[in-house]
Amino acid sequence: KHFKIAVLPGDGIGPEIIESALKVLDVISKKYGITFEYKHGLVGGAAIDETGDPLPPETLKICKESDAVLFGAVGGEKWDNLPTDKRPEKGLLRIRKELELFANIRPAKAYAPLLSSSPLKEEVIKGVDLVVLRELTGDVYFGEPRGREVRNGERVGYNTMIYYEHEIKRIAKVAFEMARNRRKKVTSVDKANVLEVSGLWREVVNEVHADYLDVDLEHMYVDNCAMQLIRRPKDFDVIVTGNIFGDIISDEAGALTGSLGMLPSASIGERYAFYEPIHGSAPDIAGKGIANPIATILSAAMMLEITCKLPQAARDIEKAVEKVLEDDYRTADIWSPGTKKVNTAEMTEEIIKRL
Amino acid sequence: KHFKIAVLPGDGIGPEIIESALKVLDVISKKYGITFEYKHGLVGGAAIDETGDPLPPETLKICKESDAVLFGAVGGEKWDNLPTDKRPEKGLLRIRKELELFANIRPAKAYAPLLSSSPLKEEVIKGVDLVVLRELTGDVYFGEPRGREVRNGERVGYNTMIYYEHEIKRIAKVAFEMARNRRKKVTSVDKANVLEVSGLWREVVNEVHADYLDVDLEHMYVDNCAMQLIRRPKDFDVIVTGNIFGDIISDEAGALTGSLGMLPSASIGERYAFYEPIHGSAPDIAGKGIANPIATILSAAMMLEITCKLPQAARDIEKAVEKVLEDDYRTADIWSPGTKKVNTAEMTEEIIKRL
Ligand SMILES: CC(C)[C@H](C(=O)O)[C@@H](O)C(=O)O
Ligand SMILES: CC(C)[C@H](C(=O)O)[C@@H](O)C(=O)O
Repeated sequence: KHFKIAVLPGDGIGPEIIESALKVLDVISKKYGITFEYKHGLVGGAAIDETGDPLPPETLKICKESDAVLFGAVGGEKWDNLPTDKRPEKGLLRIRKELELFANIRPAKAYAPLLSSSPLKEEVIKGVDLVVLRELTGDVYFGEPRGREVRNGERVGYNTMIYYEHEIKRIAKVAFEMARNRRKKVTSVDKANVLEVSGLWREVVNEVHADYLDVDLEHMYVDNCAMQLIRRPKDFDVIVTGNIFGDIISDEAGALTGSLGMLPSASIGERYAFYEPIHGSAPDIAGKGIANPIATILSAAMMLEITCKLPQAARDIEKAVEKVLEDDYRTADIWSPGTKKVNTAEMTEEIIKRL
Repeated sequence: KHFKIAVLPGDGIGPEIIESALKVLDVISKKYGITFEYKHGLVGGAAIDETGDPLPPETLKICKESDAVLFGAVGGEKWDNLPTDKRPEKGLLRIRKELELFANIRPAKAYAPLLSSSPLKEEVIKGVDLVVLRELTGDVYFGEPRGREVRNGERVGYNTMIYYEHEIKRIAKVAFEMARNRRKKVTSVDKANVLEVSGLWREVVNEVHADYLDVDLEHMYVDNCAMQLIRRPKDFDVIVTGNIFGDIISDEAGALTGSLGMLPSASIGERYAFYEPIHGSAPDIAGKGIANPIATILSAAMMLEITCKLPQAARDIEKAVEKVLEDDYRTADIWSPGTKKVNTAEMTEEIIKRL
């Protein structure tokens, strides 16, 4: 009942929203008799400014000695012109690889009180409750060879899309296990009509499915999935896909509900786990105390469920968030006429009151 | 004023919608005093059934002797279990490569009378008028090495994402030229924060931009683009991107308006041009005479503008289509209560009446 948490606030609004999540965890800790030991680490632009490295060895050490990492957000204009491998994003990619966080879980859920913020018509978005499961440590993100060179006098750039059998197997298993606790449907997304790497993906997913015949499996081409997500998002339950397709499809799925500030995520591996909001560091509103803390608070809820094995505590937080929305409290990003505008601290307080 | 057109109807509804487009071209031919010489060729499943090859040499020859190819659609369940390189899609990929059709142009436009068919709220979709320009002969579709093998006792599949400087240059030029005739804005979509191939893409697009400083250029990561297309589609004018990102992004853009049956496309190279509707072969309604011919008719309009250099004839067709919609004629796919349901032949007649 004791958990070591690495806390990496990062840049922009990162520190503010992490503070909110920690306040909520304090309350849960008392209610459920568990304890958290926090170690703070530098990451992203903040780490570049102090050490020149977006992921300093000390931060990696803290992560590797933890049961879970709670992450804010990284990046900002200040560091936009650095070369690719010195940028804040590189810190994030290195954490994923070093901690072998192969399964990125991104739920997208339409909250009834927020239907009006969606760009989709109410009848299309109402009731949407899907999860994108994105493979996070393989594919063209890490594939070799990669690089740039000159061939026959002209520049050429290349990367390698690659998947190994074991990488596909383990993410497929996570997908089917997840679907068992949900609506028992998995949509595997690939481009098997064109790519050999997708041909293998589809083959291995089919093989793993043999152990989960209680779950429905459908295969969908990534272009068609990009289309169907807009046309009939309700039909999806668990979407499983590779790293680059997952990057695109999960952001598209995130946009459907229209409330980016509400979307949590978890990235898990055999040994480590990592929790972060989907949204970025929002430098334009950083330091103003008006950011929406809900995505980070819901990420902490995912931590309680997955790392701390306290699904009940996760449900408590989710219900408190839903009640706050029903009671018409809104941060600026989700505010609409007729609702009550609150800042980060006030939103956090209202959630805590309902725990 | 004489044009050789290769006509490839393909599978499913292909023959029906191509017939409609040819009827419209007949009328235009008289009105503008131009002549068309049609040669029909087999492609896709229809070609597989007769010759075992989705793109028989005879068909390729017809295409190479033509000024333009008018294409219906390919594919169907019947051929779904063939190996990747024997499938109907392979015929399409080979045509693109053989004719060097490097620029795929896919307009997505919200027609006022059809706003109700969009999954997006009216205020989000109204006024959308964008073009996705997808590079079509490079990238992971054709990159080498590619394949499947066994390494250390496990299966592995891989493909190569690759772009050469000259491939990026020529598509970037098309993008800026197109934007000059439109709202003068280009959004170049890549994943330069992760991929070297995208790093080169961004660099070369910037270089080409130096010759088009009257056009605004913005760069956007593909995941963010997938999100912004839903949130604020009106902000896009010309989107230029690589083959695989373009496959996904153009289908997403196509879904925004909610009327797949309305979307035309053109694929052009230095020497050849190819026109096809975006939608597939729709085997479920094939032979019933109820398919929406508009996407194919608008593809023929793109042919008149690009290959025949008759922009006025293209505008005539576009206006006739708009009038038909204003007059409430609808095929089944876009029908809604209160409008008049017509079949393929009737829709074609109504368009011709308004030419
Ligand atoms: C910042 C970037 C490297 C990252 C990714 O592409 O994985 C981000 O888009 C994400 O989805 O977490
Ligand atoms: C059928 C398939 C090979 C093709 C592609 O991926 O290019 C299709 O999706 C398209 O967009 O024209």
